[in-house]
Formats: sequence, structure tokens, C-alpha cells
Amino acid sequence: MTEEMTIAEFQRFIRDRYYARDSERGTPGTFLWFMEEVGELASALAGDDDHNKAEEFADVLAWLCTLANINGVDLAQAVRKYTAGGVDGFK
Amino acid sequence: MTEEMTIAEFQRFIRDRYYARDSERGTPGTFLWFMEEVGELASALAGDDDHNKAEEFADVLAWLCTLANINGVDLAQAVRKYTAGGVDGFK
Repeated sequence: MTEEMTIAEFQRFIRDRYYARDSERGTPGTFLWFMEEVGELASALAGDDDHNKAEEFADVLAWLCTLANINGVDLAQAVRKYTAGGVDGFK
Repeated sequence: MTEEMTIAEFQRFIRDRYYARDSERGTPGTFLWFMEEVGELASALAGDDDHNKAEEFADVLAWLCTLANINGVDLAQAVRKYTAGGVDGFK
């Protein structure tokens, strides 16, 4: 079921759950929380615990969604930069 | 159409396009690229260019997918930490 979850659905899920709190905290403060999770991802990647790696990837993605929410960015729309073809701005 | 793209589909899209190169570079080197995009996201968030914000969110998400790919992490499965309910490990 989650396998079928769209990017938009996950972003909405995070919005429903956390928008009020994250919006009140604002972008700079929320970015600090995001970076804490990025740091934890770095630690996980340096280790051997696959379950921990998966958890930290999920946390970074969730905080990325919440940052997008409070900045009015639609991630599903944004990734068209990649999926719509034509432009290769990735690398 | 992209609105309906699943997390799993986007991760596969990035895998098809970049796995070989990213796998060869390895996790530490790929993490450096990821962090470069995180830095660009910070710059965008500090500014007023909404198009640039969307682009940088997309780039961070794409690099997060590629890091997940080369570390054998299924993001759609990983986010069940949030969506499966019960556990609130987010905050």
C-alpha cells in the first residue's frame, strides 16, 4: 500500500500532521531540525545498521516535506524537473 | 501525471538514470554531492525566488533517492515509519 503512495500523498500526510507546528516555528528553525536529521543520516550511512539507515532516510524525507510545506513548494510538481524529460539539471 | 508519481517510481526513475555512476562513486562521495544540494536549498530558502526553491527541493530529493539506491534502502518502505501509524518517531 505504501509502495503505491505518491509523493504528493506523502507530502500531504506530513502537512496534515505537522503543518501547524512547523509553520509556527518557521523556516530557519525547521531547517535546523532538518539538518539534525541529515546529520543522523550521515552517521547511519557510516555504520552497518540497515534498519537505522532506512529510518534516517525516512526522517530526512519527512523533514524535507515539512520544509516544502511551509515554503509552499509542491514536491510532485518540483520533480518534473527530472521526470518531464528534456532538461538534465541533475548533474 | 507527475502528481500521481509514487515515491517508489521516482526512486526507480533516479536509479535507472544514475545508479551506475553513483554506485561507482560510492556513498561518501555521493553524500558530498547531496550536501552541496542541501546548501543550495538553504540559499534558496533564504531568498525570494519561488522557482529556485522548487528546483532545489527537487535536487535534494533526487540526491536523497540516489543515496538510498546505492545503500539498498527502499524509501517507500522506509516511510511506513510514519504512514503505518502507531509509532510517532518523527518529533
